[in-house]
Amino acid sequence: MPRLLHHRLDPSSRLARLMFAEYGVAVDLEDVRPWLRDAALLEINPAATVPILLDDGVPPVVGTLATIHAIDDHYTPATVDSLIPSDAAVRSEMWRLIEWVLVKLNDEVTRYILEEKIVKRDIRGAVPEPGVLRAAKANLAEHLLYFNWLFATRHWAAGPMLTLADFALAAHLSTLDYLGDVLWDSAPETRQWYARIKSRPAFRTLLNDRIVGMPAAQGYADLDF
Amino acid sequence: MPRLLHHRLDPSSRLARLMFAEYGVAVDLEDVRPWLRDAALLEINPAATVPILLDDGVPPVVGTLATIHAIDDHYTPATVDSLIPSDAAVRSEMWRLIEWVLVKLNDEVTRYILEEKIVKRDIRGAVPEPGVLRAAKANLAEHLLYFNWLFATRHWAAGPMLTLADFALAAHLSTLDYLGDVLWDSAPETRQWYARIKSRPAFRTLLNDRIVGMPAAQGYADLDF
Repeated sequence: MPRLLHHRLDPSSRLARLMFAEYGVAVDLEDVRPWLRDAALLEINPAATVPILLDDGVPPVVGTLATIHAIDDHYTPATVDSLIPSDAAVRSEMWRLIEWVLVKLNDEVTRYILEEKIVKRDIRGAVPEPGVLRAAKANLAEHLLYFNWLFATRHWAAGPMLTLADFALAAHLSTLDYLGDVLWDSAPETRQWYARIKSRPAFRTLLNDRIVGMPAAQGYADLDF
Repeated sequence: MPRLLHHRLDPSSRLARLMFAEYGVAVDLEDVRPWLRDAALLEINPAATVPILLDDGVPPVVGTLATIHAIDDHYTPATVDSLIPSDAAVRSEMWRLIEWVLVKLNDEVTRYILEEKIVKRDIRGAVPEPGVLRAAKANLAEHLLYFNWLFATRHWAAGPMLTLADFALAAHLSTLDYLGDVLWDSAPETRQWYARIKSRPAFRTLLNDRIVGMPAAQGYADLDF
């Protein structure tokens, strides 16, 4: 069985877990706190990031891009449609939005909120810097406006069908939602889309997540939020 | 003929140009200064980044991931090996290193140097902040140590064959080299690899680049540097 080194609130780890769940493939999860830069972790990945995918007889698969490609290349059952669509235009739109989420949304929102609320607390018991959280939340509001605009005319992020872009975005928003940072009232179109993806069986694995000492915000696991 | 909206020193644009050149596909280049956030650019790409790939009859292909996938999906001649290898282990290692370059190297080095030396100067004639450049160069020294370690045991970045990871890394280093920021004397293994990739015909397109008012550093276009 494949084994995933992950952190429960790391969005890229969540993306990998969503893919496995959607493809109906069982995976063993092993919790890692990558910011501790454990020597065993650094040996596999000098960048000290998760996810890392381990399986018998193959070298470790390291990082977000390598993991999503490996899952799609090697763990997609023949009976299931790939989350990477064959239509060229939808496919390009999917990669555009995956990059938007992995680079821009992460860079302007998610990584600051995780650093302030999870990493600083875990490393030295420090409390979040309010100014940093405020800036990240203001950036998130701008991103939600953009996603509202997208979802006003599309059923799924990249077009008419569910793709990896939906799971990439849902992975980030689910982390931010766990921490209580998504103001859903201000994002009706995105909320409708999120309610739809949240009710997929694949999402259950994330909704059961709990972090010791950091309970999920109200509504996190509710399908009607 | 495909048309690429690009900036000459933008590493992801350079990666796309290297792919086209390596695949022997002619492409029209159109210079863009994405930081000016021109309305026509924002309409195609609200993230205001390049590269953007345009061609007849298909929607614009926006961003790094979408562009490299589109080039590989639609512009690889049947007679040429794809830069995305079929071997699973090399392929995963390639994606790991592409992510290293596009996210980590960019985030710790390239984007600061471009912001300080190109963007600030172009927008308001400002001079670079020495402290920022110093920090970025110290980070680059760490990255070069890692690449030296890699190239001490491999012919190409991801293993025995040339892949997209080589072009991704070469695109970033060529930008930094244009600006005179790579201390090659401290990086003998990486220099050997760079000399090898720089002498490929595909690289010529980059070596002829000139930015008005910002000449290339000495050695930039020399195959023996």
